[in-house]
Amino acid sequence: MRKKIIVIGATGTLGSAVASELEAADYEVVRASRKGSPRVELEDLSTLDALFAAVSAVDGVVCVAASVGLSPLESLSDTDVVLAMKGKLFGQVALLQRAAKHLRDGGSITLTGGTFKSYIPGSSLGALVNAGLEGFIRSVAREMPRGIRANLVSPGWIRETLLAMGQDGSEGTPASEVARAYLEAVTGKMQGQVLIP
Amino acid sequence: MRKKIIVIGATGTLGSAVASELEAADYEVVRASRKGSPRVELEDLSTLDALFAAVSAVDGVVCVAASVGLSPLESLSDTDVVLAMKGKLFGQVALLQRAAKHLRDGGSITLTGGTFKSYIPGSSLGALVNAGLEGFIRSVAREMPRGIRANLVSPGWIRETLLAMGQDGSEGTPASEVARAYLEAVTGKMQGQVLIP
Ligand SMILES: NC(=O)c1ccc[n+]([C@@H]2O[C@H](COP(=O)([O-])OP(=O)(O)OC[C@H]3O[C@@H](n4cnc5c(N)ncnc54)[C@H](OP(=O)(O)O)[C@@H]3O)[C@@H](O)[C@H]2O)c1
Ligand SMILES: NC(=O)c1ccc[n+]([C@@H]2O[C@H](COP(=O)([O-])OP(=O)(O)OC[C@H]3O[C@@H](n4cnc5c(N)ncnc54)[C@H](OP(=O)(O)O)[C@@H]3O)[C@@H](O)[C@H]2O)c1
Repeated sequence: MRKKIIVIGATGTLGSAVASELEAADYEVVRASRKGSPRVELEDLSTLDALFAAVSAVDGVVCVAASVGLSPLESLSDTDVVLAMKGKLFGQVALLQRAAKHLRDGGSITLTGGTFKSYIPGSSLGALVNAGLEGFIRSVAREMPRGIRANLVSPGWIRETLLAMGQDGSEGTPASEVARAYLEAVTGKMQGQVLIP
Repeated sequence: MRKKIIVIGATGTLGSAVASELEAADYEVVRASRKGSPRVELEDLSTLDALFAAVSAVDGVVCVAASVGLSPLESLSDTDVVLAMKGKLFGQVALLQRAAKHLRDGGSITLTGGTFKSYIPGSSLGALVNAGLEGFIRSVAREMPRGIRANLVSPGWIRETLLAMGQDGSEGTPASEVARAYLEAVTGKMQGQVLIP
């Protein structure tokens, strides 16, 4: 039987490349996103419960969705600070908690962080979230039940994203290359690792 | 004129050692804590506003307060997860925001993280917060106005804490030794550094 993987953020730059890479490796891929179906909004945790109620016998979940905006910290209110962490940080923690209960034995959870290779103005909360996810995954992997594995992919700039921003993409990594790190995390034996493709 | 430093958590194991170390180096120390006066509760950000309204001409703030409890992630509700981050993570971010506005030119902000030298069960949110603070300080230091410096001290176990827990303290670092890292962060020129004493 083909293994079934949910990709959250499957309509995105990275998510569409990850979904294709998994299909090419003969996985059945359930493509979820914020505006798609199944609909998942990482800032609304009830959509995560609905996801696992609707899709059964899942072998893995990959999350390549949500991000933290760039803004100087002094421009943010206390409420803004917490809101900025809602999708990518709290949403991915909540996803991992649910996946640890619902995935089949030996399943895999692959979350997404990010790496700022050089300083980007306004990135302090993004840096907090990305570093926090690294510390989290290294530790929480030790708590995973039933042979479930948890890993994080922390990409630098994606070439396609830089090109879409009107920049020369030479400092970026092609989405297809980054997608191979996700495939490794799904198919391999790694546990509690941070992959920097 | 003696320089004035606020120590938040000054009644604690580490905070009392830090306050003594600063006084020995001829700083004027304002000892704040949750039950003391000035009263600061990192989970109630209005107490931070009150602190900077009450104490003026401040050259530095050191925060050695609040911590993240140990509990297996599966035992925590979505609300628990966010609450666990309230004091040490959101509280310290909010403190830095206020200090960046209120400190005198060239002042210093020194926050506290933590380092788990070996795995401790139930530490996944603590690991998230500590790693997140590291990423945050390295990035946000670049945004500091008026020569203000921001650094993080990330201690491992303190000897006195291990002894109080009934363990032989040989794997811990004495509080007085850790306090010297805080003194270095206050008196030195370092910016955006993570000190692991
Ligand atoms: N692109 C880069 O250069 C880069 C570099 C490092 C890290 N990353 C990280 O990689 C991840 C994906 O980036 P990307 O560039 O591929 O993003 P993208 O092209 O903007 O696509 C985002 C995808 O996630 C979905 N999504 C967005 N917010 C969501 C939310 N709150 N809840 C659920 N789904 C949500 C979108 O769904 P809809 O289309 O339905 O709205 C879309 O499928 C992000 O975490 C990002 O921080 C990206
Ligand atoms: N001790 C260790 O082995 C160790 C190792 C690594 C990192 N750390 C970190 O170092 C920091 C201090 O640890 P410690 O062992 O010295 O703690 P501690 O002995 O328990 O003292 C904590 C101090 O912080 C105050 N405090 C606690 N919660 C607070 C809150 N929500 N808002 C404001 N003040 C609060 C307490 O005030 P009251 O007394 O008035 O309640 C007390 O002054 C913590 O961030 C901890 O995670 C400690």
